[in-house]
Amino acid sequence: MSSPVVRIYQENIQLAHGSGGELSNKLISELFLSAFGNDELNKMNDSAVLQTKTKKIAFSTDSFVVDPIFFPGGDIGKLAVHGTVNDLAMSGAVPKFLSCGFIIEEGFPISDLQKIVNSMKVAAEEAEVNIVTGDTKVVPKGKGDKLFINTSGIGFIEHQFSLGAECIQPDDEIIISGTIADHGMCILSQREQLSFEPEIESDTAPLNKLVKLVIDKFGSAVHAFRDPTRGGVAASLNEFAKSSNTGIQIEDELIPINKAVKAACEILGIDPLYVANEGKCLIVVERGYGDEVVQYIKHYPLAPNAAKIGQVSKKYPQQVQIKTLLGTTRFVDLPVGEQLPRIC
Amino acid sequence: MSSPVVRIYQENIQLAHGSGGELSNKLISELFLSAFGNDELNKMNDSAVLQTKTKKIAFSTDSFVVDPIFFPGGDIGKLAVHGTVNDLAMSGAVPKFLSCGFIIEEGFPISDLQKIVNSMKVAAEEAEVNIVTGDTKVVPKGKGDKLFINTSGIGFIEHQFSLGAECIQPDDEIIISGTIADHGMCILSQREQLSFEPEIESDTAPLNKLVKLVIDKFGSAVHAFRDPTRGGVAASLNEFAKSSNTGIQIEDELIPINKAVKAACEILGIDPLYVANEGKCLIVVERGYGDEVVQYIKHYPLAPNAAKIGQVSKKYPQQVQIKTLLGTTRFVDLPVGEQLPRIC
Repeated sequence: MSSPVVRIYQENIQLAHGSGGELSNKLISELFLSAFGNDELNKMNDSAVLQTKTKKIAFSTDSFVVDPIFFPGGDIGKLAVHGTVNDLAMSGAVPKFLSCGFIIEEGFPISDLQKIVNSMKVAAEEAEVNIVTGDTKVVPKGKGDKLFINTSGIGFIEHQFSLGAECIQPDDEIIISGTIADHGMCILSQREQLSFEPEIESDTAPLNKLVKLVIDKFGSAVHAFRDPTRGGVAASLNEFAKSSNTGIQIEDELIPINKAVKAACEILGIDPLYVANEGKCLIVVERGYGDEVVQYIKHYPLAPNAAKIGQVSKKYPQQVQIKTLLGTTRFVDLPVGEQLPRIC
Repeated sequence: MSSPVVRIYQENIQLAHGSGGELSNKLISELFLSAFGNDELNKMNDSAVLQTKTKKIAFSTDSFVVDPIFFPGGDIGKLAVHGTVNDLAMSGAVPKFLSCGFIIEEGFPISDLQKIVNSMKVAAEEAEVNIVTGDTKVVPKGKGDKLFINTSGIGFIEHQFSLGAECIQPDDEIIISGTIADHGMCILSQREQLSFEPEIESDTAPLNKLVKLVIDKFGSAVHAFRDPTRGGVAASLNEFAKSSNTGIQIEDELIPINKAVKAACEILGIDPLYVANEGKCLIVVERGYGDEVVQYIKHYPLAPNAAKIGQVSKKYPQQVQIKTLLGTTRFVDLPVGEQLPRIC
C-alpha cells in the first residue's frame, strides 16, 4: 500500500515537474513519451531532426486556453492537435510534425493530464501527424489556469499552384464545409451551464484529409481555404475580402446550422456568424466549380452538410454583405468586442 | 486631446485583443507586424509558407514563463528568441524561422508588450532569424500572470555527420563556453530583492553563431552540444551520461563562475551546477581536441571564459562525478525538487 505522501506526489502536478530534474524526466517518460513516443521524440534532444519530403513547407503555431478544458465532443488536447493540423491544412500543406508546449498550473491533477495526453495521441494518429518535440513548464497555483497548450506544426506543400486569401478573384464561389457555430456554442453553453436538447457538441475535427481530397480533385480551381475559428465565418470572410481587395456576398438561408445551435444563438442573442468553428472550413473556388465541389465533399464524413453560401465580386471591395431571410442586405463587419473569451 | 476612455483602451490589453476581431487585428498590425514584419508574416495566412534550403531540418519548441518579465540583461521576449534559437543550434542547425505565441493576461500594459516585442525584434535580427507566424490569446485577469510566450523554430541542418547526446564516446572531452549560473542567480536575486555588487546579469544570448564556428572548424570531431538551462550543468551532463551510457567526470576548480554569482550561491546555499544558464553551451569533442576548441572560441565575444571542465569515460556509466576543491569526488545527481521555479 502506498503512503499518503507518495499518493499526493503522484496525483497532482508540482512545481518540480517543470524543473528540468528528476520529476520532469519522470513526467516526460511516463506520460508524454509513453503516449506520443516516436524515434525522434524519444531521443529527448533539444530539437527534433526531421527529413522533409518537399523543400516548400508550411509552419504554424497556436496556443490553446479554452475554458472548460473538457467539453462535449473533445478537450483542450484534441483541440490543440486539430487546431494546428487545420492551420497547416488551410495553406494546402500535408501536416506532418507537431511540437507541443504545456504550461501547467501547480496542483493540476495528473489524471486529467493523462486524459488530455491520451486524447492528443488519438487525435495525432487520426490526423497522421507525429508529435516530435515538446516542452513543459509549471507555474505556481493561481498564476495560470489549469492548463494551456501550444502546438506548432510543420507540413509539406506538394501542390504547385498558388493558394491563399490573396489568390481570391471576383466571381469565385464560396463554400462552407458544414454547419457553423457548433464549437463556440458548445463552450458557451458549458461555461454558462445552459443545457440544450440535444446537447451541443464541439465540431473539433482534423480537416487535412478533406483539404487534400479537394486539392487532388480540383487542383488550381481552388483559390483559398480558411478555418473560421475565433471571430467565426464573419472574421474569416472579412480577412478574405481585405486580402484580395474584393467584395463578398453570402446568403443567410444557404448557411447550414444545427437546430439546437440556432436556438441557443437566438436565446442568447448571439449572431452565429461570429461564433468559432473548429472542424469546418471555408473553400473559395473558381466560378462554376462550387456545386461540383459541394457534391464531391458531401460524401466525406466531415462534410455532409457542405453548402455553397455565396460568391466574390468587385462590388464593395473589402466588405462582406449578407442577404437576410427577409430579403434585405446588410454588411457583416469584423467583431469589435469579445463575445466569447477563451473559446479555443 | 484623447478622452480617458480612449486612453484606457489604448493602454492595457483587453479580452477583445484576443478575439480574432478588430482589436486583434489592430494589435497585430500596429504592434507585431510593425516590429517583426516580413513577406510571409505580413500575409497573415493561417500558416507561413517557407522554402527550406536543406531537406534535413531541426524543429524545436519552448514556452517561457519567467518571473519577473524584465530583468538585468534582458526580458522574457529576448529570452524567448534566444531559447529557441539555442535549442535549434544545439542540434547543429542554422536557425531560420521562429513562430511566436503570446498568452497575455487581461490588463497587461501595452507599453510593456511593446518593449518586449521590440526586444524580440532586436534579438531576432541579431540571431538572423525571421518571426514568420504567430498567435495571440488573452486570458481574464487572474487566470494567467502578465505574459507567457511560446517560441517554436525551424533550422536548416547543413552538416553531414551525426551530432547529439547519443554520439558521445568514452575519452571525449567536455567544454563549457563560459561562466555558469548567471541567468538563474540573476532571476533569483531580482525576485528575492537581493542586491549584489556588481549586479548579477542574465547571460541570455544567441549561441547559433558560436556553434556554427565550432562545426565549420572542427567538423565531426564535435560530438554534442547542449545549453544547460533549467536544471543547469548538472541536468545536462546527467542527460549526456544517460543517453550515451557513459560516465562523466568534471572538476570543480575548472568550472568558470563570476565572483558575484559564486558569492550569491554561497550565501543562499545554492549549488551553481543546478542553476540555469541562457547563453552558455556544453560542447563535447573527441579526445585531444578540447584545448584547441577552447583556444579557438575564446576569441569569440560570447565565450571569453570558455574552459575544458572534464571528460567522458567508461567508469560509472550513466553517472556524473565531480572532483571538489578539497580533492574528494562526489556524484552529481539530477535535481529532484525545484530550487528556482519560473526561471525561464
